[in-house]
Amino acid sequence: MEAGDIAQHTSRRYNEELEGIRSRVLAMGGAVEDQIDQAMRALVGADSQLAEEVVAADHRINMQEVTLDEECNRILARRQPAAGDLRLIITILKIITDLERVGDESCKIARMAAQLSQMERSPHCYQALEHLAARARAMLTDALDAFARMDPRAALQVVHADEEVDREYEAIWRQNITFMMEDPRTIRRMLDIIWCARALERVGDHSRNIAEYVIFLVGGRDVRHISLQEMRAAVDRLHPPEPSAP
Amino acid sequence: MEAGDIAQHTSRRYNEELEGIRSRVLAMGGAVEDQIDQAMRALVGADSQLAEEVVAADHRINMQEVTLDEECNRILARRQPAAGDLRLIITILKIITDLERVGDESCKIARMAAQLSQMERSPHCYQALEHLAARARAMLTDALDAFARMDPRAALQVVHADEEVDREYEAIWRQNITFMMEDPRTIRRMLDIIWCARALERVGDHSRNIAEYVIFLVGGRDVRHISLQEMRAAVDRLHPPEPSAP
Repeated sequence: MEAGDIAQHTSRRYNEELEGIRSRVLAMGGAVEDQIDQAMRALVGADSQLAEEVVAADHRINMQEVTLDEECNRILARRQPAAGDLRLIITILKIITDLERVGDESCKIARMAAQLSQMERSPHCYQALEHLAARARAMLTDALDAFARMDPRAALQVVHADEEVDREYEAIWRQNITFMMEDPRTIRRMLDIIWCARALERVGDHSRNIAEYVIFLVGGRDVRHISLQEMRAAVDRLHPPEPSAP
Repeated sequence: MEAGDIAQHTSRRYNEELEGIRSRVLAMGGAVEDQIDQAMRALVGADSQLAEEVVAADHRINMQEVTLDEECNRILARRQPAAGDLRLIITILKIITDLERVGDESCKIARMAAQLSQMERSPHCYQALEHLAARARAMLTDALDAFARMDPRAALQVVHADEEVDREYEAIWRQNITFMMEDPRTIRRMLDIIWCARALERVGDHSRNIAEYVIFLVGGRDVRHISLQEMRAAVDRLHPPEPSAP
């Protein structure tokens, strides 16, 4: 075997390792998406058994985080990646932390679902929550897609969508306070609903974090803590916008 | 200059870099501790100007995170650290994320402080919050000390303390719901107080995360998502407990 073959072999193995870890991050993302869906189903369907299943399944998400974390450490130690590969590993280390926390938020929703399943229903409130959940869930899917396709423009859309999620959350919050004031007997229930809304708003925040890491991954620039306008300019420098029609 | 001198020089520079970044993490930790203290002072003293100062100072914490993050990336790329040095850099990358989020929680408290400063006071509620704040703040200090001294046993104490913080938070939560039910006019104020308590409970969680990273840093074992008992056993293997007196 020639030295060149060994180098090629090593580099093929290395590429396979990087591809493997990327796919496993996406698989973890899929598992986390399922957890949100099931938690919301448990909530809307007052299904306390499903809620318990969501809580019980959280340890699998945790283990995925720990395993991926170890894998990143191993690649850093063995392969000493540089430039884009190094950014990929750093990005993955951060993405899995956010994914694990989305898993935690799903558990919180499931716990509230179990509590709320014992109380009087108010389908109207759940409608607003379902709408918020659909938006936050779409943000997560889009952030993971942006990661899969290394697409900073799609990532920017996710950051943008977070503002709408924040607005919907504020609306639920205000409306529930009004309900509580009108009928103090609903306080406990309304608070549980506010906590669910809060958890969904956090899912939006974590998805936004993931999107920001994708912009860093592709462009090498840390875009956290800057305005949406600056962020858009940074992404435009990576992908100049198409000229508008005359 | 001999080759050995260059190697020694390089390794001295490298050690200085690692020491430098450690100190800067501790400096960031100090700045975050100040933010909690000021936010709580603004809350208890109904000082809306101080509250605004806390919110305005958050960008400094954010910039510390971004700069330290870049520095870690640079060390990973240039020095290709191995074993303990690699764990140190990975740990710092995680610690600064948690510190930045503690900064965000301080901002939330400051924003509530500004709102609450316009409302009727209820010093009794603040007493419970101050107590919770002191505990959460001590957890952060102890976690940072454990990092500075690379002391997994001290880190374990922090993890343990988180349970007490969670209990105090639950107590404030329950008490405030009772107040709301007794007097619905207090709903808005009580919710703001619950949010402050929640932010402090999150400070405890982030401090616990930092402590868990320290145990990983010293022992090389990821102790997240395991029971306190397993964690204690893992730390005991690093530092066998002293034999009890006869």
